Amino acid sequence: MRDRIIQKAKLAQSSSRVLANVSSDQKNFALVRMAEKLVDRKDYILEANRVDLENAYRKDYKTAFIDRLTLNEKRIYEMADSLKAVAELPDPVGEIVTMWKRPNGLQIGQMRVPIGVIGIIYESRPNVTVDATGLCLKSGNAVILRGGSEALNSNIVLVDTLREALREAQLPEDAVQIIDMPEREAVDIMMKLNDYIDLLIPRGGAGLIKNVIENSTIPVVETGVGNCHTYVDKDADLEKAKNICFNAKVQRPGVCNAMETLLVHKDISHQFLPEMIEMFKNAGVEIRGCEKTLAICPEVKPATEEDWYTEYLDLILAVKVVESVDEAIEHIYKYGTKHSEAIVTENYTVARKFLNEVDAACVYVNASTRFTDGFQFGFGGEIGISTQKLHARGPMGLKELTTIKYIILGDGQVRK
Amino acid sequence: MRDRIIQKAKLAQSSSRVLANVSSDQKNFALVRMAEKLVDRKDYILEANRVDLENAYRKDYKTAFIDRLTLNEKRIYEMADSLKAVAELPDPVGEIVTMWKRPNGLQIGQMRVPIGVIGIIYESRPNVTVDATGLCLKSGNAVILRGGSEALNSNIVLVDTLREALREAQLPEDAVQIIDMPEREAVDIMMKLNDYIDLLIPRGGAGLIKNVIENSTIPVVETGVGNCHTYVDKDADLEKAKNICFNAKVQRPGVCNAMETLLVHKDISHQFLPEMIEMFKNAGVEIRGCEKTLAICPEVKPATEEDWYTEYLDLILAVKVVESVDEAIEHIYKYGTKHSEAIVTENYTVARKFLNEVDAACVYVNASTRFTDGFQFGFGGEIGISTQKLHARGPMGLKELTTIKYIILGDGQVRK
Repeated sequence: MRDRIIQKAKLAQSSSRVLANVSSDQKNFALVRMAEKLVDRKDYILEANRVDLENAYRKDYKTAFIDRLTLNEKRIYEMADSLKAVAELPDPVGEIVTMWKRPNGLQIGQMRVPIGVIGIIYESRPNVTVDATGLCLKSGNAVILRGGSEALNSNIVLVDTLREALREAQLPEDAVQIIDMPEREAVDIMMKLNDYIDLLIPRGGAGLIKNVIENSTIPVVETGVGNCHTYVDKDADLEKAKNICFNAKVQRPGVCNAMETLLVHKDISHQFLPEMIEMFKNAGVEIRGCEKTLAICPEVKPATEEDWYTEYLDLILAVKVVESVDEAIEHIYKYGTKHSEAIVTENYTVARKFLNEVDAACVYVNASTRFTDGFQFGFGGEIGISTQKLHARGPMGLKELTTIKYIILGDGQVRK
Repeated sequence: MRDRIIQKAKLAQSSSRVLANVSSDQKNFALVRMAEKLVDRKDYILEANRVDLENAYRKDYKTAFIDRLTLNEKRIYEMADSLKAVAELPDPVGEIVTMWKRPNGLQIGQMRVPIGVIGIIYESRPNVTVDATGLCLKSGNAVILRGGSEALNSNIVLVDTLREALREAQLPEDAVQIIDMPEREAVDIMMKLNDYIDLLIPRGGAGLIKNVIENSTIPVVETGVGNCHTYVDKDADLEKAKNICFNAKVQRPGVCNAMETLLVHKDISHQFLPEMIEMFKNAGVEIRGCEKTLAICPEVKPATEEDWYTEYLDLILAVKVVESVDEAIEHIYKYGTKHSEAIVTENYTVARKFLNEVDAACVYVNASTRFTDGFQFGFGGEIGISTQKLHARGPMGLKELTTIKYIILGDGQVRK
């Protein structure tokens, strides 16, 4: 198995050298061909997906799992559309990010270049196979895909289709590799291939991400866990606050940028919480409150210490009344995951303090945390949301799949 | 030992939260006080250094090692000057790198912020203790220093001095921590403290760097190994070529941006090599050549396969005659370390090809590779030269010791 994986990684690496220097036109042609081929081949893809689904049903997976695994005609068209959208995005490769001139006449510039070979380790979501391939191709990178074993049949047919499109575009099909071995050992091997893989991006649950961070010797960009807070300040516009909090919790509770804990300043808690909690209850949200919350809304379930740490990804919300913006910032520092944090306030100084002092990928004033997303930010695509500080932070688009090299133009300069 | 190291890391972490939000004035005041105190205390520092030097002499270390370990009055003034120079640099923290407006009115910006706690693992060079502390402080980071055990006495006195200056500036002295345990185990413990340290930067020889990359669970920025090439094209201006090559090899051979292999196009090899090699020989450079080089200059020592891989860091140079720019690029790809690579040519298309296709931190046209340096690039300081692709590539100045956070300013926006 090790040899086969290394073989795939080597092929990806040599393809990446070609991809780094092909024209945008050629990459865009390949992306559009990929989209067309997915639609052409939809029957084969759905057939393979049916096999995966039957296996999953037999193993009694949860509804959410089955839903993520499921492909249908609509989803295939969506995947195709997302490839076409990536083709429309500007090519990041070759951009001169900045260039300056030194007193000795040297011109020094940063040129955006692909990273090389990117490994993606993800769960049983066939759409990630297509989305990740599209973004890696556009940014000039080869990709090695390791999806969840329950989606293996779907992924094999998808990758086959994508590689055929690369061939037709006269690009190296080996730029897209799939680790088609269901064994866990395959991931262990992949995580140590520093000589061939430049970056690993784990996408999925906390367990998957933790495993990669602890065991990979390849640089990792950590994505995802979001224990997000919204703090409603004493100087908040309470109408805005209600809309923002409701949106952050209810609009799509199962995702990493949804609110998990609501922090409310004590001075407005009596005025704000009863109506807010009523809104949440009507939307089916279970509330778990601190003692002060319970004093205001006695019907609420008490929160435990564990609740403050929990990313529910569900219609559950922890609520805490705080003494001050400082207590809110301390709570976020202690329990947060540095993903997305929001304040609702009309007070300039408090807003500025929150923006400066909260340490998170995305810090909001008077808006829903649900905007932490590559599309919402205007990147036109997203490979994940980085919750680490190195290399990329927050939503990662095409630029975050590149690095720079310095180009230095001289006319004979030597160092004195 | 573990508990003591964790204790230090915790203190660094809590100090880093303070440092992240202090004014530039306060940081600059501390930097200037550090500089003044180093000079005030120079007798104590030199005394501690004398103890380290005596131990090192007894252990029979090489001259280069002793030289790097040695402090004297001039070097103390240089360290002080470098701190003052860092005080003069613009503060990177708080800069809004970019900000844009979305159709829904949200303003999204990238704000430059400190990384947090930076660990530096380095050899027995006391000047790194001061330089790294200065750059970390200016960029708002706490620092945990782990220098070579042979410099421990010097480092303890230096850190003591630096911390005293922090106290006088009313900044948390715990922002500068020294791992004052000579045992190797201390490094092993430090490399696993993901909860407290955000970034590790190893500075030193290949063995030290390899150890950190393979064993650290904390993100690492790899610095340093430079097997740098200069390719003299058939369309080179041979006078420029001679100056550039001579400078790249001879001006300071012991550093990572010095040339280690000279590649020469076959068409000009007969014209160029005899005179070039004569110049090198007069400067005491030992030449190791390929067969074609030997055919032109028979007195040259033959190169082995190992020579192409070697970073000599000495007055030794490998020389190879190549058929084409493509062969030069292939040679660099195979043997290079992606540090600094140069072409000498007057040919526009060849220069453009070399710039695009060579994968290295710094790619030069018609200039000496010796310019790969934070000061030469105009950064005013340097914490190291990254040879990896993630987060930072090439010379790392203050900006490379920061990350960004997204700030999102709204007036009640919710996601639809």
